[in-house]
Amino acid sequence: MRPDELVAAARGGSPRAVARLISLVEGDSPLLRDVMAELAPHTGHARIVGITGSPGVGKSTTTSALVTELRKRDQRVGVLAVDPSSPFSGGALLGDRIRMGDHATDAGVFIRSMASRGHLGGLAWTTPQAVRVLDAAGFDTVIIETVGVGQSEVEIAALADTTLVLLAPGMGDGIQAAKAGILEIGDLFVVNKADREGASNVSRDLRGMLSLAERREGAWQPEILKTVSQDGTGLDEVAAAIDRHHAWLAETGELGERRARRAREEVQAIALEMMRARWGDVGGAGELETLARAVAAGESDPYTAADRLIGPQ
Amino acid sequence: MRPDELVAAARGGSPRAVARLISLVEGDSPLLRDVMAELAPHTGHARIVGITGSPGVGKSTTTSALVTELRKRDQRVGVLAVDPSSPFSGGALLGDRIRMGDHATDAGVFIRSMASRGHLGGLAWTTPQAVRVLDAAGFDTVIIETVGVGQSEVEIAALADTTLVLLAPGMGDGIQAAKAGILEIGDLFVVNKADREGASNVSRDLRGMLSLAERREGAWQPEILKTVSQDGTGLDEVAAAIDRHHAWLAETGELGERRARRAREEVQAIALEMMRARWGDVGGAGELETLARAVAAGESDPYTAADRLIGPQ
Repeated sequence: MRPDELVAAARGGSPRAVARLISLVEGDSPLLRDVMAELAPHTGHARIVGITGSPGVGKSTTTSALVTELRKRDQRVGVLAVDPSSPFSGGALLGDRIRMGDHATDAGVFIRSMASRGHLGGLAWTTPQAVRVLDAAGFDTVIIETVGVGQSEVEIAALADTTLVLLAPGMGDGIQAAKAGILEIGDLFVVNKADREGASNVSRDLRGMLSLAERREGAWQPEILKTVSQDGTGLDEVAAAIDRHHAWLAETGELGERRARRAREEVQAIALEMMRARWGDVGGAGELETLARAVAAGESDPYTAADRLIGPQ
Repeated sequence: MRPDELVAAARGGSPRAVARLISLVEGDSPLLRDVMAELAPHTGHARIVGITGSPGVGKSTTTSALVTELRKRDQRVGVLAVDPSSPFSGGALLGDRIRMGDHATDAGVFIRSMASRGHLGGLAWTTPQAVRVLDAAGFDTVIIETVGVGQSEVEIAALADTTLVLLAPGMGDGIQAAKAGILEIGDLFVVNKADREGASNVSRDLRGMLSLAERREGAWQPEILKTVSQDGTGLDEVAAAIDRHHAWLAETGELGERRARRAREEVQAIALEMMRARWGDVGGAGELETLARAVAAGESDPYTAADRLIGPQ
């Protein structure tokens, strides 16, 4: 199928066409350029929700329960489950089917596992393009779910309109919230497994820490919510909070700013990759190689070599 | 002082001039270009030795003992102690003085702590330029010491001619050696605290793992050495092994290859930063900003925008 036909099929509701487009993204296909050009006019409608948290807090369960809640509201929902620790991508079919659970036969839901490790730029490279596919295919909400390890949660927050940070009692409570950066990235904090002992301590500690954090004037005041995702308790409140946050983003103009910032990162990442390719692959016979050998020999310095490489403005 | 005067003073043996040049590197000074051009003709002589290992294996002690050993051999030695977890740089003077110990009054030794976190490109950006300063200033051996956390040890190995991986008994022996990548990056494995119980187990486990690792034909066969760095035991053997490895690098042409590869990484990192600056800072009014807004609005796609940004070849 040609890119325009694929995009038309995806927009017409074909899950196979959507899956094929995301595979093109993951495989860094030469067709991607044409695909992205076809998708562009149809993008900008989906709400992008990031869900992150430490292993064991119930991310998959909460994602699934949120999908159920959004389906009640007649939204079409796409889910990208990004595993930043896995070098495998795309074909995690069995996992996807298990994750889909109740949603397996629902044409209004599309779920896909993606890996990011080892790929050019990781999360920052493939995920925004996969989001673009789901956005253009007409999904009302796109959920990006990732485990909070290393930098991945910060990257997710950069991609999402609204970021949910999940916590749960009994997981080294204070520590998980105090983790570098987690207070800054959360728009909504969800204490899951709220029926368990210690849940109110988690909320209280979190409230304390959030009250100490400095925020710009007029900034969003993060909300703390409680869920028992296993049986769907509290997910209606989560969906309502996402609505409130989205309304705030739209009113303040922050939505447009976030989206422009995202596009800037994406364009820059692609442009830098293009420059790398233009300069010559590592080990290749490109201009970079020649200049680097002159630097190694002391005949040039790295700045002069970089000047030559990038040429005049 | 002008860059050419500073470089002349550093080459004349002034530790203050060397310190000033490294401060320019850390501060990303606008003078750096001129400095690097002045340094270039004098580089390429120093041997670069990386020392890495988990916290507690005795990296500082071993570095200090190796410095003593190399001084016996009439070498001038520069040490860069890189702390990838610290956001502070340069001014860790007290720490440097404590570290210098016996070497504090020795004009043939220069020791400097550097931080890398938060800086553009981290280790990969400042460290090679600091090495270049010490190389041009006439140090025979430059030691880069860093704690093995995250990616830092892999980055160190990429910068060094010879990489020493330090281990010690009683630190979760098998695990430390099996840590992702540590077997691949070590040219020499040094079991420190060899007088303690368990040291021979560490050596044996290591030997077993190294024998299982696949190596290219003609590749260097990593050596396993034992030290008690506290009293200098075994450092003569370590210095001799560094000599053997260096001779092997020179004979096989691998030395030139490693240095060209390093120069390539350095030139590319600088060139990519220059492109970022040219395209406009984040939040600025550059061309990137304009193109990103068109992408966010669905009027363009990221690839077309990137094409415009980088312009014709």
